[in-house]
Amino acid sequence: MKTEIDVKSKDFIDKFFEKSELIPAIIQEFETNEVLMLAYMNRESMRKTLETGYTWFYSRSRQELWNKGATSGHLQKVVRIYGDCDNDTLLVIVKQTGAACHTGAHSCFFYEIWRDSGE
Amino acid sequence: MKTEIDVKSKDFIDKFFEKSELIPAIIQEFETNEVLMLAYMNRESMRKTLETGYTWFYSRSRQELWNKGATSGHLQKVVRIYGDCDNDTLLVIVKQTGAACHTGAHSCFFYEIWRDSGE
Repeated sequence: MKTEIDVKSKDFIDKFFEKSELIPAIIQEFETNEVLMLAYMNRESMRKTLETGYTWFYSRSRQELWNKGATSGHLQKVVRIYGDCDNDTLLVIVKQTGAACHTGAHSCFFYEIWRDSGE
Repeated sequence: MKTEIDVKSKDFIDKFFEKSELIPAIIQEFETNEVLMLAYMNRESMRKTLETGYTWFYSRSRQELWNKGATSGHLQKVVRIYGDCDNDTLLVIVKQTGAACHTGAHSCFFYEIWRDSGE
């Protein structure tokens, strides 16, 4: 299903790329509020995300646009997008099909490196 | 209350700064799972976060270390820290005192820029 971009959204794209060509996009699961991953968007991947309703990123290592799940089937259907207070980060709320992480884990943040000893 | 860094955590610091001097840290609230903000950590701010149990960041605009809430009182007590699958992003779970955002909003992501028309 294609989703329309409204005029307001088109105007917002430029605002997010004034400071940098690439901005971080936090991907959070709609149903559970679990943080699934972080990836980077450039102007074009943000535009394609808004046009298609599925997440597109820019891969810094491969230097190319990347439709999350295009090969694995683990697509992310976008439900909401929030900008932050200074317009340099996105919070993208998605319905995740399958696993978000390339390791097969549901979230990329499966690795606890520290916990407060009092908790 | 000071919290000890264990040896495992010390080893992990280096691993996160192999690709870049600065890595994004997603700040998520422990009680609600709300994503509050994103800020950047360098090696030193990660070390100070682990040592003190409160968040320290590196401000890209001011080019200095920054103890979140030091002036506003809106401290973030760290409960858990997760690394991601490729060791270049942190997910920091905190107990937030007051507002995370400098605007006074609880979360920096208060600005909805898009929603799926079907939701």
